[in-house]
Amino acid sequence: MSPTITAFKASPDRGRGLARDMQVRWALEELGLSYDTRLVTFAQMKEAEHLALQPFGQIPTYQDGDLVLFESGAIVHHLALSQPGLLPDDADGRARALAWMFAALVTMQAPIVEFGMATILERDKPWFEARQPMLEQAVRTRLEQLSARLGDADWLDGDFSAGDLMMVGVLRRLGSSGVLTDYANLAAYVARAEARPAFKRAYDDQHQVWVEASKSAG
Amino acid sequence: MSPTITAFKASPDRGRGLARDMQVRWALEELGLSYDTRLVTFAQMKEAEHLALQPFGQIPTYQDGDLVLFESGAIVHHLALSQPGLLPDDADGRARALAWMFAALVTMQAPIVEFGMATILERDKPWFEARQPMLEQAVRTRLEQLSARLGDADWLDGDFSAGDLMMVGVLRRLGSSGVLTDYANLAAYVARAEARPAFKRAYDDQHQVWVEASKSAG
Repeated sequence: MSPTITAFKASPDRGRGLARDMQVRWALEELGLSYDTRLVTFAQMKEAEHLALQPFGQIPTYQDGDLVLFESGAIVHHLALSQPGLLPDDADGRARALAWMFAALVTMQAPIVEFGMATILERDKPWFEARQPMLEQAVRTRLEQLSARLGDADWLDGDFSAGDLMMVGVLRRLGSSGVLTDYANLAAYVARAEARPAFKRAYDDQHQVWVEASKSAG
Repeated sequence: MSPTITAFKASPDRGRGLARDMQVRWALEELGLSYDTRLVTFAQMKEAEHLALQPFGQIPTYQDGDLVLFESGAIVHHLALSQPGLLPDDADGRARALAWMFAALVTMQAPIVEFGMATILERDKPWFEARQPMLEQAVRTRLEQLSARLGDADWLDGDFSAGDLMMVGVLRRLGSSGVLTDYANLAAYVARAEARPAFKRAYDDQHQVWVEASKSAG
């Protein structure tokens, strides 16, 4: 039995791989694991059946036999422990990879999501123009720090790990803003990750969902 | 050799246990582990020596022999793996506890920090009064969902775990806002955690740092 994940039936990112199922798909592909996808509508995500799997009404969820997981970071970590490929063998290396997962999803993601969501939710508010430079500066502060740490290394700590996978997933959210291009080593880091065959397979699979949704909507 | 953590020399929360060293201290106390604390000033946190340990110039860090960790979630998880007491014995239970750690630090913390930080950083901005109800509603949406999931259970998934420790740490940030009092089971959940002897020891230790800092400042 393959595990089952949930994803948006019609993703608000229009198939650009910014929804949180992308990182779970990518991890599954890196590890060579097959999986099934169950698509859910926004209405279904607020229903009791989905809330039993995901108390905050989000995607992705992960079901494998009796195990039900939510939070993309936890799902990726669980998968990474099940097969070699996304975590070092030693306990200290695993702890450091998990630190980068938290750094991605907490320290980096918070200002990046705040910056991006304001563009969507507050664009027509009278304060939008005044606040946006402040939000962009908060993002740039974190990018400068991450850029300094990465330096000329390929990945954040030795080989490609679940920490890089989550970090790239977060940095990709900056795509349309153009901010990332000012940090050459970070832009190259994201490009290096996007060139991985497993990334491409995951991207294509989630993009195909959007293509199908567009057809049926059209 | 005991591990060494870093904490603020003069915490901006004035000793209320809202800085991120609190959760690490609490985990160490739950597990009965001794540790040393190295206090750092805001100026020191931006220096190369500290950035080598913590690329984002934050506290806490954790050093134990050759292992250097940052991100409170990763430190608590590492500690929890080293001793029984904060994680279930089985792999599935551990994965679920980690999911609650991510839920706390990502899904719950993002709107809670945004709400709290606006109160500090944007109070004198012309948009403050108009935006604050929007931020509060985002917090309330998450609290309602968490409250529904917790129900009348003592803890989020079986016994007290690292997931509860991180979740309580995040919910405590709402303290002075009064918002949490509208969710009786969550308020009781936080009070239940704060009544644990390990919490009290950790709280007293970090509070004492603030008391000493006040004396030397005065």
